[in-house]
Amino acid sequence: MLRSFFRTRGVRCLSSVRECEWTDMCDFFFFVFHLRHVEKFTDLMVNDVVTKDCYRADHLLGDRVEELLKDPMLKADRRRELEDMQARIDEFNPEQMAEALKNTETKAPTTNNDLCEPYPFNLMFPTQIGPSGAVKGFLRPETAQGIFVNFRDLLYYNGGKLPFAAAQIGQSFRNEIAPRAGLLRVREFTQAEIEHFVHPDHKNHPRFVEVADTVLNLFSQDAQLGEVKKPFLMTVGEAVSKGIIANETLGYFIARCHLFLLQIGIDTTRLRFRQHLKHEMAHYAADCWDAEIQCSYGWIECVGLADRSAFDLKAHSEKSNVELVAYERYAEPIQEEIVEVTPNKQAIGKAFKRDAKAVTDALAALNEADAFALRDVIEANGTAPLQTESGEMQIITGMVTVERVTKTVNGRNYTPSVIEPSFGIGRIMYCMFEHAFYIRPDDEQKTVLKLTPVVAPIKATIFPLVNDSALNELSVAMNKSLTSNGISAKLDTTAISIGKRYARTDELGVPFAVTVDHRSITDGTVTVRERDSCDQVRVPIPRVPELLRVLCAMTEDWATATASFEKQAVASDEA
Amino acid sequence: MLRSFFRTRGVRCLSSVRECEWTDMCDFFFFVFHLRHVEKFTDLMVNDVVTKDCYRADHLLGDRVEELLKDPMLKADRRRELEDMQARIDEFNPEQMAEALKNTETKAPTTNNDLCEPYPFNLMFPTQIGPSGAVKGFLRPETAQGIFVNFRDLLYYNGGKLPFAAAQIGQSFRNEIAPRAGLLRVREFTQAEIEHFVHPDHKNHPRFVEVADTVLNLFSQDAQLGEVKKPFLMTVGEAVSKGIIANETLGYFIARCHLFLLQIGIDTTRLRFRQHLKHEMAHYAADCWDAEIQCSYGWIECVGLADRSAFDLKAHSEKSNVELVAYERYAEPIQEEIVEVTPNKQAIGKAFKRDAKAVTDALAALNEADAFALRDVIEANGTAPLQTESGEMQIITGMVTVERVTKTVNGRNYTPSVIEPSFGIGRIMYCMFEHAFYIRPDDEQKTVLKLTPVVAPIKATIFPLVNDSALNELSVAMNKSLTSNGISAKLDTTAISIGKRYARTDELGVPFAVTVDHRSITDGTVTVRERDSCDQVRVPIPRVPELLRVLCAMTEDWATATASFEKQAVASDEA
Repeated sequence: MLRSFFRTRGVRCLSSVRECEWTDMCDFFFFVFHLRHVEKFTDLMVNDVVTKDCYRADHLLGDRVEELLKDPMLKADRRRELEDMQARIDEFNPEQMAEALKNTETKAPTTNNDLCEPYPFNLMFPTQIGPSGAVKGFLRPETAQGIFVNFRDLLYYNGGKLPFAAAQIGQSFRNEIAPRAGLLRVREFTQAEIEHFVHPDHKNHPRFVEVADTVLNLFSQDAQLGEVKKPFLMTVGEAVSKGIIANETLGYFIARCHLFLLQIGIDTTRLRFRQHLKHEMAHYAADCWDAEIQCSYGWIECVGLADRSAFDLKAHSEKSNVELVAYERYAEPIQEEIVEVTPNKQAIGKAFKRDAKAVTDALAALNEADAFALRDVIEANGTAPLQTESGEMQIITGMVTVERVTKTVNGRNYTPSVIEPSFGIGRIMYCMFEHAFYIRPDDEQKTVLKLTPVVAPIKATIFPLVNDSALNELSVAMNKSLTSNGISAKLDTTAISIGKRYARTDELGVPFAVTVDHRSITDGTVTVRERDSCDQVRVPIPRVPELLRVLCAMTEDWATATASFEKQAVASDEA
Repeated sequence: MLRSFFRTRGVRCLSSVRECEWTDMCDFFFFVFHLRHVEKFTDLMVNDVVTKDCYRADHLLGDRVEELLKDPMLKADRRRELEDMQARIDEFNPEQMAEALKNTETKAPTTNNDLCEPYPFNLMFPTQIGPSGAVKGFLRPETAQGIFVNFRDLLYYNGGKLPFAAAQIGQSFRNEIAPRAGLLRVREFTQAEIEHFVHPDHKNHPRFVEVADTVLNLFSQDAQLGEVKKPFLMTVGEAVSKGIIANETLGYFIARCHLFLLQIGIDTTRLRFRQHLKHEMAHYAADCWDAEIQCSYGWIECVGLADRSAFDLKAHSEKSNVELVAYERYAEPIQEEIVEVTPNKQAIGKAFKRDAKAVTDALAALNEADAFALRDVIEANGTAPLQTESGEMQIITGMVTVERVTKTVNGRNYTPSVIEPSFGIGRIMYCMFEHAFYIRPDDEQKTVLKLTPVVAPIKATIFPLVNDSALNELSVAMNKSLTSNGISAKLDTTAISIGKRYARTDELGVPFAVTVDHRSITDGTVTVRERDSCDQVRVPIPRVPELLRVLCAMTEDWATATASFEKQAVASDEA
């Protein structure tokens, strides 16, 4: 296999571009329009009728509804109507949006001018490919397509077996009408997507039991459209068994997403999973949830988790004329009755010469009813007309047999469903930073970034307590030892008080500090300090790397990992 | 600092886009034209005068010269001329290219038609940003610019000290006229760049001694333009001391690049560092070398290593009106004579009222000669005319003093130089795969990918020798133990012969195999096998993770790491 890869790869790549440009281009950043993107990557836009300034219709409507809802004199009916409108903004089509803008008398901001009718705006960046400028391309608005295009190879690598998943991370580009909210709505962003392919009738997940007890903050369709409009806590096991989450595999990924966000430091009280409303979801989607994180900009959609059924593979298959299916072997072979049309090639060849192929093709293309009709006519008249690519031909007795036969079928081809968790990396990181930031309650001047050990880029800072050559030497050795054990550390030898240096490392989000002092020289121990609790323990130098390794892998917490070490009191200037 | 970041970041980001769109856009994928890109990212193109098909002029000329050189009857003079042309193709301007195409009677391929005059074609992909379509943008053709734009922040993070380096990895986009050579010339590629900022007068490197003895295969300017046109072997220390490589820092990065390529498995006999020819280099570049790797497509430029002097920071500074400089404190303060123009603000305010600022601004802007001329005229006539933004004003005695003073100066601002190693990740990976592929000399059917442990995605495969529940159980435990020790492993329980399974794992490039057999149950040891030598040793189960960790970090080689273990003979079906 390798041999043929190296012999033919260059040629195959080029020829596949020629044969099927559309499919191949998807592999890269540029690709050509198809259904998913026309539908999905469109925003409704409105213009100020006087200044011609462009706005996103959903933003203006949202702001307007919020303003109207502030009116304390609002009648209950109207309030209910506006709240329903607010919940549905994302699912409006152009007509519904026009209606809602009229209903709320929404005007252009600052000028208060009238707005034009909302019209769709494609969010994909256009460009031209190649020297002639004739080939139009687009920047990809999502990373997913590369995986669908490579489905056949991926299935082959997995030995033809389902389920399997592929993941991808990269840049996506959307020509947002109004980039806003700082780092949260940008025109270029890093997206990470998993495409988990499953049998459409078997969406259970073998590892679901491991996460079934995870408690999620769920904002279901019913909760959003009900009177109270509040999310509720429920285990993912219960949510799946009650049909709130469509199936185990989707539930598994929602739970894993929840655990992932926890591990990187997202505050669970500011995390919820919001289900898409019926009309907000694409018609083919079985179920769809967004992980939303609350930050100073409000509730931000950071991860989308969707059961997209078989839509993507089918759409790619149609456009590229390449079958994107998996094969399923039946537990027991089944007997299937089929119609078999057998041409007598010799007789046909002799009679039709160069048109023989047209005749056999036409015979092979007959459906059941037509095949039997043809047979009946031949049986009755000895001859029957057949439409072929070369015109009408007369088929006579002996040229074809049509019969019903029973065949043993061992399996079938089917199009897998796909469960798609899609992560907005920039948004997650922004929320992570906001949730990590706090001010020590006892000292307004002390700010801390409580990055969890697994995400902190520097795991430990090493401090010689005072500037002393013996302590510096020990510190340098400790730094080397941590680095060679794969723990990213830095050395701080600046000659300011240890308290100030701790404050600085806390502000940078370094989770652990290792302090080398005079006792280190006499008894070979150092102080290890945890950032948030400010707890300190004495640890023998050779045991520091292993302790930090366990703490950074987050397989043990601080209390457990340090239970056997001597606690150390915190000096006044370190508090 | 953190507090203000979170309070103001959103606003600052948006306002900096408004204030200085050009600079800010560079941070992202889109950015607007500037000098470096007009000059650098242009190819010369020619058209078939009849069919209008586009070709890259350098490709056609290169092919034509190669064809002409094959003529055994070629005169020595003409051969020499063609070889010189071949060496210079990359540095031709449009006129020189036109001349060379005529000289060699180069025609369009396949049609043999005449070609038009070569003309430059910009390789950047254009797009439109925002809803109005009025803002023109380009996809970045290199990743470097983001680092230059962030220079001030980076310098601040490094405490204002030089040297320091920043690195970046991401996608770059070039609208190649003729993508070819399979995966090597594509329109979108992953680029990794380091920008190492140094003082222009001190380009030595503190760690140069560590690499000084590294032997490089150098293809210098002289070697390329000489009679023989062959690279030569020389230590980087000698090359720098002889001035073949411009300075220590550039030499350091060339050596580190060489060692990096070695570690990922590039064959040194197919690696050379080619120096750019004088005219091939940008006018501002001090020195420039390409790491070229030989593969089935010829010698491929995979890494560019350039001393770009202060060009990039100066260009960004000019366009954005933001000073991009570092401060240098003199070892000893120096005395500097300067001209001091001191306005009498009270007198000026009284005389000129609302025009007072225009007058003081005009005085402050005077150069040395004009300042003394103004003083002389006032001393002679009691008054002198001064051009200001508000028109000509009369300055009289007492309004200004001009004098020469001596000041103590502690340091100065300067624009740092930058050394830029730029890696084409896709090209390096392609060459790595080609160099890793081989066929076992003793068996044509056995192909191997000798990926080095550091790059192999799977480090070890675990094999139960036969399908037996006790062996399977031990194998699963071994798999878990390796995974939890950070060693990526996979389990192969298929019921085919161990020889065939070894062959399969060799073909996938897995460097080590761990085989669990019946002896494992009795004495607690397993077989560890090295892919390329097929050597096997018996290792106690608890010692396997540490052995593989050392081997995968490539800190010890196989012979050293396994010296203390029992050698095992290779069974006939495993050979």
